[in-house]
Amino acid sequence: MKIYTKHIIVNTEKKIDFVRITDKVREVVNDSGVKEGLVLINPMHITASVFINDNESGLLSDFRNWLEKLAPMHMEDLRKYNHNLTGEDNAYAHLWRTMMGRETTVAITDGKLDFGPWEEIFYGEFDGQRDKRILIKVLGE
Amino acid sequence: MKIYTKHIIVNTEKKIDFVRITDKVREVVNDSGVKEGLVLINPMHITASVFINDNESGLLSDFRNWLEKLAPMHMEDLRKYNHNLTGEDNAYAHLWRTMMGRETTVAITDGKLDFGPWEEIFYGEFDGQRDKRILIKVLGE
Amino acid sequence: MKIYTKHIIVNTEKKIDFVRITDKVREVVNDSGVKEGLVLINPMHITASVFINDNESGLLSDFRNWLEKLAPMHMEDLRKYNHNLTGEDNAYAHLWRTMMGRETTVAITDGKLDFGPWEEIFYGEFDGQRDKRILIKVLGE
Repeated sequence: MKIYTKHIIVNTEKKIDFVRITDKVREVVNDSGVKEGLVLINPMHITASVFINDNESGLLSDFRNWLEKLAPMHMEDLRKYNHNLTGEDNAYAHLWRTMMGRETTVAITDGKLDFGPWEEIFYGEFDGQRDKRILIKVLGE
Repeated sequence: MKIYTKHIIVNTEKKIDFVRITDKVREVVNDSGVKEGLVLINPMHITASVFINDNESGLLSDFRNWLEKLAPMHMEDLRKYNHNLTGEDNAYAHLWRTMMGRETTVAITDGKLDFGPWEEIFYGEFDGQRDKRILIKVLGE
Repeated sequence: MKIYTKHIIVNTEKKIDFVRITDKVREVVNDSGVKEGLVLINPMHITASVFINDNESGLLSDFRNWLEKLAPMHMEDLRKYNHNLTGEDNAYAHLWRTMMGRETTVAITDGKLDFGPWEEIFYGEFDGQRDKRILIKVLGE
């Protein structure tokens, strides 16, 4: 049984951003030497997300608009989120990460991510402009 | 360590549909010979979902109505989703799959899916009427 | 390869509640003896959720309000959810569990949950006041 762990750091220029990390995950899977198994990818922060969807810029902007619609960054009055009464201003980011999901687990078959043609892994940053960590854990043989 | 991989094909008659796949997953777990471990189940497409919920037709129609409410298939003007400016018409399906989740991981104990009484695995198709693949990966011993 | 399974029971006083279970999961990981691997945590019921977010009471109340906004417990008329035509009254709880997610998978590194500083595991109960089970499955070496 092989188990391999990598923590990577991202720091987005924008407060809200989507970063494609498929190639980075592939590199870690290669380094692990695992030919058959699973890889777990998750942010180590609670205002970010790792998810799988289409690498199409229009769709990524649709995600952004949709998140804002279902969980506005700013309520009419910022204080309408109870979390923001603590001095925080990022309640929306905790909700967005919930909508997009925390983590993904991907199958490794024949040493490769066992993906369909359009599957791409993204890191969704909802409160960035600072160092954040992503955990990649590979397990198999 | 045993690792077993199966790709199955689904092609729904309806564009939007929910297909119960619990028995198919059980069959794959049986074939794997794994008695203790995990099974990952995910669509290999980004307009579909694998999730666990109740096998009750009223609830499945509630899901359908709720998805439409939170992410309408058609905005007033179809072009209101940026993704649809690329010639696609399925932006809604990418959002629905996000709401329902991409994948599920299920524990295997004593050779069986370690489920509560009402847990059932569904494939949610949001842009069907064509061949789609589901990946089932079993890992354990 | 070590595999360890634990089923725990929760029974919340309130119908809707969030229970922090990080320490319980840590205890099970310790008991498993696994130093490197994965732990899957999921409710065995379809009106509950296991998720990772911030242990801040204001945020937990924001989750509650947000769930109610996007999937009201009671529609103007209770029967507006088709699921509730079957005699059930908890269609909302199936939707809330979908929004919050069924399960989480967490990496174990050096015998510990490989967490960032604010990650905490919660059990979200959406139709409680009765015994419910949570499954914790540890796999690794």
